[in-house]
Amino acid sequence: MKNTDVLIIGSSAAGLATAMSGKNNYPDKEFTVIRKEDQVMVPCGIPYIFGSLESSDQNVLPADSKYDALGIKYQVGEVENIDRKNKVCTLSDGSQIGYQKLVMATGSTPKVPGWLEGTDLENVFTMPKNKEVLDQIKQKLTGLDRVVVIGGGFIGVEFSDELNKSGKLVTIVEKLPHILNLAFDKEFAEQAEQILSNRGVHVMNNCGVKAIKGKNGKVSYVELENGKQVEADAVVLSMGYEPNSKLADDSGLKLNDNGFISTDEYMRTNDPNIIAVGDCAEKRHFITRQQSGVMLASTACAEGRIAGMNLFKLSAIKTFSGTIAIYSTAVGDYAFGTAGITEADARAEGFDVVSGSFEGMDKHPGKLPGMHKQRVKLIVARESGIIIGGEAFGGVSVGELTNLLGFIIQSRTSVHTLLISQIGTQPLLTGSPAAYPLMKAAEIAAQNIKVEQAKEVEATASTK
Amino acid sequence: MKNTDVLIIGSSAAGLATAMSGKNNYPDKEFTVIRKEDQVMVPCGIPYIFGSLESSDQNVLPADSKYDALGIKYQVGEVENIDRKNKVCTLSDGSQIGYQKLVMATGSTPKVPGWLEGTDLENVFTMPKNKEVLDQIKQKLTGLDRVVVIGGGFIGVEFSDELNKSGKLVTIVEKLPHILNLAFDKEFAEQAEQILSNRGVHVMNNCGVKAIKGKNGKVSYVELENGKQVEADAVVLSMGYEPNSKLADDSGLKLNDNGFISTDEYMRTNDPNIIAVGDCAEKRHFITRQQSGVMLASTACAEGRIAGMNLFKLSAIKTFSGTIAIYSTAVGDYAFGTAGITEADARAEGFDVVSGSFEGMDKHPGKLPGMHKQRVKLIVARESGIIIGGEAFGGVSVGELTNLLGFIIQSRTSVHTLLISQIGTQPLLTGSPAAYPLMKAAEIAAQNIKVEQAKEVEATASTK
Repeated sequence: MKNTDVLIIGSSAAGLATAMSGKNNYPDKEFTVIRKEDQVMVPCGIPYIFGSLESSDQNVLPADSKYDALGIKYQVGEVENIDRKNKVCTLSDGSQIGYQKLVMATGSTPKVPGWLEGTDLENVFTMPKNKEVLDQIKQKLTGLDRVVVIGGGFIGVEFSDELNKSGKLVTIVEKLPHILNLAFDKEFAEQAEQILSNRGVHVMNNCGVKAIKGKNGKVSYVELENGKQVEADAVVLSMGYEPNSKLADDSGLKLNDNGFISTDEYMRTNDPNIIAVGDCAEKRHFITRQQSGVMLASTACAEGRIAGMNLFKLSAIKTFSGTIAIYSTAVGDYAFGTAGITEADARAEGFDVVSGSFEGMDKHPGKLPGMHKQRVKLIVARESGIIIGGEAFGGVSVGELTNLLGFIIQSRTSVHTLLISQIGTQPLLTGSPAAYPLMKAAEIAAQNIKVEQAKEVEATASTK
Repeated sequence: MKNTDVLIIGSSAAGLATAMSGKNNYPDKEFTVIRKEDQVMVPCGIPYIFGSLESSDQNVLPADSKYDALGIKYQVGEVENIDRKNKVCTLSDGSQIGYQKLVMATGSTPKVPGWLEGTDLENVFTMPKNKEVLDQIKQKLTGLDRVVVIGGGFIGVEFSDELNKSGKLVTIVEKLPHILNLAFDKEFAEQAEQILSNRGVHVMNNCGVKAIKGKNGKVSYVELENGKQVEADAVVLSMGYEPNSKLADDSGLKLNDNGFISTDEYMRTNDPNIIAVGDCAEKRHFITRQQSGVMLASTACAEGRIAGMNLFKLSAIKTFSGTIAIYSTAVGDYAFGTAGITEADARAEGFDVVSGSFEGMDKHPGKLPGMHKQRVKLIVARESGIIIGGEAFGGVSVGELTNLLGFIIQSRTSVHTLLISQIGTQPLLTGSPAAYPLMKAAEIAAQNIKVEQAKEVEATASTK
């Protein structure tokens, strides 16, 4: 029987990041990564296989070269059983590997709701992170014109934009009042809807799906809860992902109420020799402290880095403090980014917040070619002034601007500290120094805090 | 005689930011801005008048509309005398304005070195922030093909790229070993040189200028210290700017050794009723604490915001803590950004530092159209792990990435804290989560700290 110091199950973002961080921190330990697929997809790149990229060959994760460079072992295979007592994994081919530490980085699978009729019809697709399946889907989509994407989260939006780009007639069907509803406040979501519509995607909000209907075994239309029918040559299900936690569950590891593997801040499961990272691992929201279902490759990598550091030696300051859910998405040459909590969610959760929004430009002066409007919104805890959420809209620089928002939230920065901070500006690269949207939004938020305070004083006085 | 609560001299970035912040914080006070020019140029946009923009009309600061919106008064005029005792300014037309607080936001003027022969020749230009003069220069440059730009700081680089874009044959002459030498380490500067050269600009490093020579009163060539001659139909002097501090000096305000108006952290001069902001005001470097000559509109705005807050009521936490010199520049569709201190400067100043650099991509997978390589370098204080400098190279997203670097430095973030931070990634907008250059650079810097520590331990052991 083979033995390895650290056995990592899964080689997508979380597994890769854990392996790299772990080997970096513990160079004397032997690391072995085991994965199901011969070639691993760049997870977030999958929508782009259907438009911007020529083929899935251009979307392969270059993990092996990184493993080679670091002296990390890897093999293709599937773990079927974990013997926690003896610390041995058994693979589907019957071979066994002993471990000192085991890392569950088993990822997630697209949800196919059991209640939804017609998901087994031909030309109804989910988008698993599997190269062969994706290649088949891309092949099948050739010649299918009318595509209905069910679910307007960021993956649904990216698929819609890419399929539209490749010439298809795309309809997004979203159950909630807006697409991107979980990540953005209404005003940002509406802007995304408008841009998508202008690009030719048909956006249907407030439309729950009742059934997928077919003819001769092939999909023909989607029936909505409101009775409407949307004709479809193909359907893409983009209704979320569920954690691959069956192996963990079978091995007696504790799962949380949503089926994720429970972890602590060092990413340890209830077995001290087994850690879990990435989509399969429990997430708590940095702000609400509630369990979160948001799965992001970037979060997976942050968890992997931290897990790698703590594998053989815990550090009380190197902990994962909850997901800030920093992410961005692109529609055409516009981009949307979000970090922390939206204003709507903050209020629903019971936070006492004010917000500040400002729309400016992402170049200055505004007549420079390629200028996009840029809007930033900050969500601020009224009492402390601490920034707990941020949203941005603009051109491609929104991706890094969103990382700035994320860092501001992580650092528990107050809006007053932000207002005395320095930023850098350049005509072709950013908004203007006197109207940089982030700083203007902070000014407005600070002003709104004052207004609320004045109201409170007035209310107190009038009740006396 | 008119009286106003706050009189602001100058209406470029610093004056505008002070007026807006001041009125925001003290809405009951009357603010009056006085400026020399009828129309104020967007300062950083000036190079772009010569290429990307059609005319200077597209580069006018929309200050007046902002003043109108906030109820701030403004007028064209020039202050000739400040009677500090009676708190009265006299204008060149003889009129007088009394003030409670006076703000010096008088800006800067391009340097014309007295030792340099030939600066008075026809077709030798500096680029003052004056619309009429700039329009005349643009007019005169029509038909002049060979332009020599003296000075390869970021303004010289931006002018060169824009003039090259407009079809001229451009040579940059730089006295130091590299262009952008004061802001970037060698490897970044070399990359900028290569891109500029590929775009057709002739870059001459290590070339001090001896004289500008002419024929019939017009410039004909530039003579270098090494004896070479560079033929020129026009010369642009880009040899830095000097603070407009004569009025302050005449009024008995204290200047520092470099001619800037001395200020404290609340931006107050030695007269408690007079503050100074922007290019004319003293700067200290956030890291070295040395006086700095770097003039940036974004720094001016940060000072203005802080000055505005402290005008009538000091706040011990709302101070300007020294310039971090966050800035970025663009060459073609590439961009360079810097914040804090370079490695070379840190070592020269006596800091014990390590660095970490990583080159990745600004989109992922790398086959996505429009991908640029992205490189990030972090300069880290070895003992504490605090990040004191950052440099970036890549596509347009480098502008906002540089602001993230700047915020990391301002927050005195350690490389270890950065390593447990979350970032967000998106295929079209950022590098990949597992190879995000900023985080990889942090990993490498942390590794280098360990290596240095090991060396130190070894050295100590061997001397025992």
